[in-house]
Amino acid sequence: MNATSFTDLDRLCVNTIRTLSIDAIQKADSGHPGLPLGAAPMAYVLWQSHLRHCPSDPTWPDRDRFVLSAGHGSMLLYSLLHLTGYDLPMSEIQAFRQWKSRTPGHPEFGHTAGVEATTGPLGQGSANAVGMAMAERALAHRFNRAGFELVNHMTYALVSDGDLMEGVAAEAGSLAGHLKLGKLVYLYDANDVTLDGPTSMTFSTEDVARRYESYGWQVLWVMQGDTDLAGLDAAIRAARAETAKPSLIIVKTTIGFGSPNRQGTSESHGKPLGAEELELTKKALGWAQGEAFHVPSEARARFDESARRGRQARDAWNQLFDRYSREFPELAKEWKQAQAGALQVGWEAALPTWKPGEKLATRLASGKAIQAVAKAMPSLIGGDADLSCSTNTLIAEGGSFEGQKGSGRNVHYGVREHAMTSIANGMCYHGGVRPFVSTFFVFSDYMRPAIRLAAMNHLPAIYVWTHDSLAVGEDGPTHQPIEHLASLRAMPGLVVLRPACANETREAWKIAAERLNGPTALVLTRQALPSLAEPSTGWAVHRGAYVAAEAEGGTPDAILIGTGSELHVALAARTQLAAQGVRARVVSMPSWELFAAQDGSYREAVLPKSVRARVSVEAGATFGWQRWIGDQGVAVGIDRYGASAPGGTLLKEFGFTPENVAAAALRSLGR
Amino acid sequence: MNATSFTDLDRLCVNTIRTLSIDAIQKADSGHPGLPLGAAPMAYVLWQSHLRHCPSDPTWPDRDRFVLSAGHGSMLLYSLLHLTGYDLPMSEIQAFRQWKSRTPGHPEFGHTAGVEATTGPLGQGSANAVGMAMAERALAHRFNRAGFELVNHMTYALVSDGDLMEGVAAEAGSLAGHLKLGKLVYLYDANDVTLDGPTSMTFSTEDVARRYESYGWQVLWVMQGDTDLAGLDAAIRAARAETAKPSLIIVKTTIGFGSPNRQGTSESHGKPLGAEELELTKKALGWAQGEAFHVPSEARARFDESARRGRQARDAWNQLFDRYSREFPELAKEWKQAQAGALQVGWEAALPTWKPGEKLATRLASGKAIQAVAKAMPSLIGGDADLSCSTNTLIAEGGSFEGQKGSGRNVHYGVREHAMTSIANGMCYHGGVRPFVSTFFVFSDYMRPAIRLAAMNHLPAIYVWTHDSLAVGEDGPTHQPIEHLASLRAMPGLVVLRPACANETREAWKIAAERLNGPTALVLTRQALPSLAEPSTGWAVHRGAYVAAEAEGGTPDAILIGTGSELHVALAARTQLAAQGVRARVVSMPSWELFAAQDGSYREAVLPKSVRARVSVEAGATFGWQRWIGDQGVAVGIDRYGASAPGGTLLKEFGFTPENVAAAALRSLGR
Repeated sequence: MNATSFTDLDRLCVNTIRTLSIDAIQKADSGHPGLPLGAAPMAYVLWQSHLRHCPSDPTWPDRDRFVLSAGHGSMLLYSLLHLTGYDLPMSEIQAFRQWKSRTPGHPEFGHTAGVEATTGPLGQGSANAVGMAMAERALAHRFNRAGFELVNHMTYALVSDGDLMEGVAAEAGSLAGHLKLGKLVYLYDANDVTLDGPTSMTFSTEDVARRYESYGWQVLWVMQGDTDLAGLDAAIRAARAETAKPSLIIVKTTIGFGSPNRQGTSESHGKPLGAEELELTKKALGWAQGEAFHVPSEARARFDESARRGRQARDAWNQLFDRYSREFPELAKEWKQAQAGALQVGWEAALPTWKPGEKLATRLASGKAIQAVAKAMPSLIGGDADLSCSTNTLIAEGGSFEGQKGSGRNVHYGVREHAMTSIANGMCYHGGVRPFVSTFFVFSDYMRPAIRLAAMNHLPAIYVWTHDSLAVGEDGPTHQPIEHLASLRAMPGLVVLRPACANETREAWKIAAERLNGPTALVLTRQALPSLAEPSTGWAVHRGAYVAAEAEGGTPDAILIGTGSELHVALAARTQLAAQGVRARVVSMPSWELFAAQDGSYREAVLPKSVRARVSVEAGATFGWQRWIGDQGVAVGIDRYGASAPGGTLLKEFGFTPENVAAAALRSLGR
Repeated sequence: MNATSFTDLDRLCVNTIRTLSIDAIQKADSGHPGLPLGAAPMAYVLWQSHLRHCPSDPTWPDRDRFVLSAGHGSMLLYSLLHLTGYDLPMSEIQAFRQWKSRTPGHPEFGHTAGVEATTGPLGQGSANAVGMAMAERALAHRFNRAGFELVNHMTYALVSDGDLMEGVAAEAGSLAGHLKLGKLVYLYDANDVTLDGPTSMTFSTEDVARRYESYGWQVLWVMQGDTDLAGLDAAIRAARAETAKPSLIIVKTTIGFGSPNRQGTSESHGKPLGAEELELTKKALGWAQGEAFHVPSEARARFDESARRGRQARDAWNQLFDRYSREFPELAKEWKQAQAGALQVGWEAALPTWKPGEKLATRLASGKAIQAVAKAMPSLIGGDADLSCSTNTLIAEGGSFEGQKGSGRNVHYGVREHAMTSIANGMCYHGGVRPFVSTFFVFSDYMRPAIRLAAMNHLPAIYVWTHDSLAVGEDGPTHQPIEHLASLRAMPGLVVLRPACANETREAWKIAAERLNGPTALVLTRQALPSLAEPSTGWAVHRGAYVAAEAEGGTPDAILIGTGSELHVALAARTQLAAQGVRARVVSMPSWELFAAQDGSYREAVLPKSVRARVSVEAGATFGWQRWIGDQGVAVGIDRYGASAPGGTLLKEFGFTPENVAAAALRSLGR
């Protein structure tokens, strides 16, 4: 690569990004001018001289990825997208942060062409980028052949002081160093200011450079990041040249650069400049035009080169792919399948089946199902937060993921649950690979911020959570989920499945594997459960709930609803009730979300309105169960924290017994 | 301090800790032998030669604090507590991990004398220790006087590889370095093994020593941590001698030390050794006694010295406090108040009041209430995650917390929400200070693992969460809470308050300040709301719900239940319904938990069973509302993610209008 020389035209382009951004923020009277003003030079140099992307084909698979981890600086990204020719007309820039615009306050994946990740919750974008860089390596390993570098692209993230203070960024940075992700580059907008003031308030001692060196990163510096385009260019070149380590480019900038009265202060961080300061800023930047949203024609022409270069690169890749398809037709087919997230036709046949009565924990059943899914979906990449021996989530013979080569299908994330989940999001954003990640259910709390983003962005991540109730036993209340089912069911877009036996677990995995428009969670037991017989009507886990055992005689007096391990308690209670002349139907309800999505007639068939005596039984908080059991229902659950003792003891002590459920049914019947 | 010399008796004591631990784990057939075997030497040297504690008076305020962050090694702690004379008889050691024992699987604060923090969820204990060290400094600053070092103690944490991989540990370590907490020491059990295998799988590149140096810590090494008692002693001395920086002592150990077939492997981490390997281990350790749970009498005598030394230290402190009480009677009174968490009598009078109709955001009202609470409770320490300008949570003239001196009442945590919350827990565990912490409501997700521990342990932390709904507006869905209210209401032990106006906010702060047996959350608006008039029956926020506007004529056809900003929508809907001849009562329900705790007659008075037409209106997920609105009710809420636009636009577009609520009431009435 030759060093680029930069001219006044380049500086005009930088200022075009700046003025466009602050004009939009001013018009919206809302937004964060500080970052676009300070980070425009690094962004310009990256996008103009390095980033390989095709504005007219934003999802071209071998493009470089760019993540604006500091999502509050969204106008920087929108300015870049608009200027380089993405489908983001000036009218959208002028509708920044308005209802139904394509320029929301923080970048939203799937909403705006060219936005690679939804960012804003700090730290997570930096972890998403790690996931993208891992996906690149995994795809390169799987698909590249001698002379056919089908996959060969960089991942860049623009990160801020706030990003790097977050624990998730620390976890992700540590793992990226461990994995030697040489094609990952962070541009760190080190302006020493966060929303509340200078970072000296909170971040003085920490030497970020040493910290990233300790993680195994290359660290580079650009001291005059507001003006030194050549320095930025050289640093990015050096980062690209280091292929054995990720690179952190520390760019010293001035937040709000150009704003005479606000630059360098937290005041410029999150408030529009105001009309007067905006004019002063433009003057200070040497901006001649008074009119808002002005793009000088020579700048426009320069930015247009991006689109041209992008099309060339994309066209060259398309030609490469055509040759590849002729040379390796099977691989090309697999490539397309991987991009689509598709499974092999008829793959379900390979899923395991268990004989009625066969006893095993659903985590073990899941471990077996994973092997079938892994065969049917070669793009599946598993992962664990140091508990794979307990969660049973290793892909057999998959090998450990190796970050330089991209080989291996089991990622050992270490005890880094939050980064693990954000990295899985990054893999989903990238495409071509399908991640599942696993830990104990109680630690889903550590993952929550990233689960929310997966749900919001319809990312098909799969969560395998085992040790799903107080039946965990001896580890005690810190390790026993109580409120977790409720708290996750409350999250829009997430499908939670708590299967009641090995066969339901198989069905749950089928659903998870085939669900491409959002994350799916499998909530599994530590303890063994007897396998159920297939209902005469067939498995209906995919409908969220179904009649697992009809009331004797067919007209129920009461309905008992169970999930997971407690379905068996409901079944036993049904027998006890029958002895007392009460006809109880037992409904298995592995997924509220899937059941709620069924049509009214199916729901009525499972839970007829006429049967008002209802009991739910689930070893978790009763919160929310009123929805299914109604005013007359009784919820058997646990609304306190658990205790340390053998699991069977706890279930009994806390009332998860057939006797207690039967008694609840009688109460619900008013007897 | 003179260097201690260690003898065979000391080595016998170390092995007593080891064998007692593995015997208990073996009897329970459950637990983690690896850590106690490896970390017994460092724990012994610390407890024997350094830790100032009084087994017969475990809550003596000036004791050193010891946190076993790696809580899975609980038997190490129980062995130490038993041997040094805490109220933990051998029968409890023998009941390890059993129902109702005082030796649960992970250490539980408040359950076992001498356990300073509930640990197990990794990383958090290390952050708790940071909070304890900050509390120590704050109390020293407030109460120490020349010649009266009332507060002068160390905080030690035993941390593991798994702890240090967690993001929360990284955040806390960074902040501790920034704050120069010289009386904080981590003993790092660096055994290079986690549950799933060697750390080389996940942690190879990261140079933990450099990382902590980059945070501003002193880093010390002990290379032969399994045997080198003198080296451990010297390192702890060096750590104590460094008063300007926290210290990390990296102790290289062998996990499962002594177990011939398991030591150094992950197999020894989380499984009992088994009878045969246990015997081999005892033999390898040179343990003569075959009998389980044997404590040699000479070891017993040596450990007894701890209790004697502890009593002496405690007695000396008590004498100091007596003299202090005579010299500074007012301060001594304040000290007792601070320890009890008490407020000044009649303090509520200083809380602000707003005129009906006066418009302001509840976050602003909270900001004013905070000043009154801060005056009435000098032990209150505020904190923010870099958003204090937006959350309005600075204690005026409180100054910024300074970690060396302990001065200042506003902790600037930086963008480190998880550590902030765990540190607040640490302050609560320590006692004498009362923390509140703040950020945007949506980022409560980042805090969640630590909130859960606060709730489980009845810690009186206060959470101030502002920007509480999609009315946040332009920042868009990443910043708009949806499922957060439901997900937090599902958590046992947490009280969530969402006040509807400035006056309700004052009442909410009163409740939070006075609630000492668990965490309380205030959920506050960004946008202005009109202040309500005091109901004729007086404010009843503390009862969780009350009649804010009675139906005309007094016999309601329908009940509209609102929380926070949406109460005003309900009130406007009531007027619209009246025009249509429908008499609607409006209930303000700031807290589900407090209302659920009222007696049946109060609940019936507010929500009479006879009125089945009910509507809830809340700008959040409808999840769980069926509990209050019943089978015939209609929940007005939002069960999807929001969007970026001005807040008013969003509220209207998503149906938070009087028209929509009135229509819902008609539907609920079957009209």
